[in-house]
Amino acid sequence: MKIIIDAMGGDNAPEQVVLGALDALKADKSVSVVLVGNADGINGALKENEYDKSRLQIIEANDVISNDESPTMAIKTKKDSSLVKAFEALMSDESCGGMVSAGSTGAVLVGAFMKVGRIKGVSRPALAPVLPSLTGKGVVLCDCGANVDSKPINLLHFAIMASAYAKIMLGVENPRVGLINNGVEAHKGNELSRQAYELLSANDDINFVGNCEARDMLSGDFEVVVSDGFDGNIALKTAEGTANLMLKLIKKGVYAGGLKSKLGALMLKPVFKDVQKKLDYNALGGACFLGVKKVIVKAHGASERGAICASILQAKGLAERDVCGQIKKSIDASAIGAED
Amino acid sequence: MKIIIDAMGGDNAPEQVVLGALDALKADKSVSVVLVGNADGINGALKENEYDKSRLQIIEANDVISNDESPTMAIKTKKDSSLVKAFEALMSDESCGGMVSAGSTGAVLVGAFMKVGRIKGVSRPALAPVLPSLTGKGVVLCDCGANVDSKPINLLHFAIMASAYAKIMLGVENPRVGLINNGVEAHKGNELSRQAYELLSANDDINFVGNCEARDMLSGDFEVVVSDGFDGNIALKTAEGTANLMLKLIKKGVYAGGLKSKLGALMLKPVFKDVQKKLDYNALGGACFLGVKKVIVKAHGASERGAICASILQAKGLAERDVCGQIKKSIDASAIGAED
Repeated sequence: MKIIIDAMGGDNAPEQVVLGALDALKADKSVSVVLVGNADGINGALKENEYDKSRLQIIEANDVISNDESPTMAIKTKKDSSLVKAFEALMSDESCGGMVSAGSTGAVLVGAFMKVGRIKGVSRPALAPVLPSLTGKGVVLCDCGANVDSKPINLLHFAIMASAYAKIMLGVENPRVGLINNGVEAHKGNELSRQAYELLSANDDINFVGNCEARDMLSGDFEVVVSDGFDGNIALKTAEGTANLMLKLIKKGVYAGGLKSKLGALMLKPVFKDVQKKLDYNALGGACFLGVKKVIVKAHGASERGAICASILQAKGLAERDVCGQIKKSIDASAIGAED
Repeated sequence: MKIIIDAMGGDNAPEQVVLGALDALKADKSVSVVLVGNADGINGALKENEYDKSRLQIIEANDVISNDESPTMAIKTKKDSSLVKAFEALMSDESCGGMVSAGSTGAVLVGAFMKVGRIKGVSRPALAPVLPSLTGKGVVLCDCGANVDSKPINLLHFAIMASAYAKIMLGVENPRVGLINNGVEAHKGNELSRQAYELLSANDDINFVGNCEARDMLSGDFEVVVSDGFDGNIALKTAEGTANLMLKLIKKGVYAGGLKSKLGALMLKPVFKDVQKKLDYNALGGACFLGVKKVIVKAHGASERGAICASILQAKGLAERDVCGQIKKSIDASAIGAED
């Protein structure tokens, strides 16, 4: 299975991206990678590494799309950018299962929309990361930022797509779907969530279990949490910010607490490491862009080789298990067409 | 300064509420309290405690409003409930500075709106807790759930009111106001946040510093974060859920980690306690309902005596420093009338 990689996307590109690709080649003999980007940069990172050359290909691209530029403009005009060329490579070769980029989220989404295209019947594709949960199984949050000002039908589609995704990604038979809301009661929420609640309740193809207050999102009571992209983005980033704050406060406390607390922290190091690992939603791979015709995995901008490798293996697994086909099937079965 | 207390509101009422009131009497000799609720229950909790009887009054009320009932219906029909009688006591006595309740948030908000009334010019009152921040100063989140489907003008009013509040509550001269959004750039966001951005930028009476990504909400870079109540509720509860998840994961890890990690945890106990204390946004008091004519503090439903005592002292301090008058002044000065 061939995976296309935007070698220039992300804060640590190309080096960490290339090294992550090599890790993936090592971890799974059935993967091959196509690195798209500046050849000198890629070759520099490859140098002095051993790898199976028959499974690595380079496509030269000498421009880069940054986080600061308009995604639509960049995708339209930067023909020689690693991202645009990666999309072209993905679409020109049937044997390519998917693509990974740690670059500008906006540009990846716009590019996927324009160059790959949405699955027929999907009103809006959506970005779905897997967040850690107390039970360790994880929870798919959909959408976390691809769409703002969603309509109720969009949220139903998010639920259908994310359920198909969770079955493959989390390995659960009948994922429990929650709707993010400011209370658990059916009548709670804003106009969008109240209308979405009705649509979700009425649909037999998903296992809708009701509203999910944000404090329960990571509890393990849901495998899918559905949300408008603006709200999902707030939830995702608040979780990130809070975890970050706590770790900083603990560190500050340890530092200020003298020898005893430093010793304590040393003894607890494995526990802290494990907790950090469990909270690191990048360890499982990236966020998948659900509803487009190929597997597109958006890795975190700060990804290092481990997260890139995980994203590549994730893309490969999703492509092998035909997540796009499964989503198409689910959307077709629900018989609710796009209105948007 | 007299503070009215809904003695029957919250999970631990009346006992912890009454004990919290006694703590407040002890902590501040210039406070007097009026406990509204079931006299037997209140007297049962008072029994065997020493306190200054001249500063404690009981108003009998034999009904309770629960979290499960319709707030509007309950406020309208439950005339003998502790909450309705507390509002009446608040409004009938000029010397009452404010009110504290740990009861149903919905009922407190509806009651404040109906029985106390909004300040002229305020389009919508809003609920504003103080969240912990990395610098320890705290950040006012406004609104965290009183309003859904807000309009841009509402968000401007939230900013004006929360700025006046932050000056008193946090003791900062010129509070930095951020608008919660899914990116820092001015063009980012949904329709509401893009329009609110324009209104906030154009207003000279507040210190608007731009969009705030949810991951930076607790960073200490803002003293006020403005948001629609639905989004603010998601941010507040995600923060709560994430902190909770982390503590549980650490505990689990310590438990599973054998003697060494248990010993480490023991040595780090003061640090953990301190972090938990810093994260406990109830320790500072409750959320203030900004934009109504009297000080209304909503304490967390799970409040124990410490949080109740803090809420009473908070209400007293806010009333003394005339937060409602300050908000009125700011709204008048901004010369932007209510449209809602």
